[in-house]
Amino acid sequence: MFYPEPISKLIDSFMKLPGIGPKTAQRLAFHVLDMKEDDVVLFAKSLVDVKRELTYCETCGHITDVSPCHICQDKQRDRSVICVVQDSKDVIAMEKMREYKGLYHVLHGAISPMEGIGPEDINIPSLLERLKSDEVNEIILATNANIEGESTAMYISRLVKPIGIKTTRLAHGLPVGGDLEYADEVTLSKAITGRTEI
Amino acid sequence: MFYPEPISKLIDSFMKLPGIGPKTAQRLAFHVLDMKEDDVVLFAKSLVDVKRELTYCETCGHITDVSPCHICQDKQRDRSVICVVQDSKDVIAMEKMREYKGLYHVLHGAISPMEGIGPEDINIPSLLERLKSDEVNEIILATNANIEGESTAMYISRLVKPIGIKTTRLAHGLPVGGDLEYADEVTLSKAITGRTEI
Repeated sequence: MFYPEPISKLIDSFMKLPGIGPKTAQRLAFHVLDMKEDDVVLFAKSLVDVKRELTYCETCGHITDVSPCHICQDKQRDRSVICVVQDSKDVIAMEKMREYKGLYHVLHGAISPMEGIGPEDINIPSLLERLKSDEVNEIILATNANIEGESTAMYISRLVKPIGIKTTRLAHGLPVGGDLEYADEVTLSKAITGRTEI
Repeated sequence: MFYPEPISKLIDSFMKLPGIGPKTAQRLAFHVLDMKEDDVVLFAKSLVDVKRELTYCETCGHITDVSPCHICQDKQRDRSVICVVQDSKDVIAMEKMREYKGLYHVLHGAISPMEGIGPEDINIPSLLERLKSDEVNEIILATNANIEGESTAMYISRLVKPIGIKTTRLAHGLPVGGDLEYADEVTLSKAITGRTEI
């Protein structure tokens, strides 16, 4: 028993977070000791609030404190486009861009036969349900650019095309600001294939 | 407002911790969302407990939930030696070694004229008070091996020697497992000076 009990419990809790090992956990726990009490209480409250007050939107599956979520409720948004993403964090990334004005659908995963995740295990049935209304005429498949993401996009596109809804995929190519010499072969090949006239 | 409010508050709290930027804070906050509720409540409780239940030991200045602390209360320990360290974390590091059986004194800082920290601003007066009892006959100065730590050690040693108490300093040299070629000049010079016969 090297640490007083309260601090060793806090170190254990910090170590449950991803990417935080024993040394960092100890540093964070000792930092808490020097923080203002108000800040610590606020921190503790936020932790519990996130767990208790947040749910997933019944329509799109995005995390939210009201259901349907603010995005689904927003009358200003274009209800004819749905952007399909793997994760709530992807919605945040898209929103930060401030350009996309359509709706979202969060799958919470991707099809992965290796891990035994099939189309029924992620939010695909509820997506198909949403498409039954006449409003939607385009689906943007914004799943990740890896094998699971690609196959999920392919799977959804095959289901959706026969209904007569346009499906699009985000462009692949060089990241802006990225050096050509550091780009991997696959990205470079996608960038060549998808080249545009200027 | 990209995030639902509870999660954006939690991200703000995580960002107040040292070494955690916006991206990491977001990742941690979303991880909390996926944690078991019991674990989150325990985490929140530990945070508040650390702040509310821990104080500094009235004798040695180490963090503790009882005062005097477990180390100061322990009758098994050698009361003739006091190891002077800068920080509570240093006590933990020494205790993990499981070899030192004396007492500690935590200074909570080091003398630093540059930052306006004088001998009165750190726990030196209380150390001198402790030396008035006849028990102590050695002080191990385990302050850090930088300018502030060295000057603090020097200062304390000059105060304590006239009282007839032995003062010692931790050995400087190559870290165990460290390569000679990567050692800096000062460390290497200390290692040569402090060489021992085998």
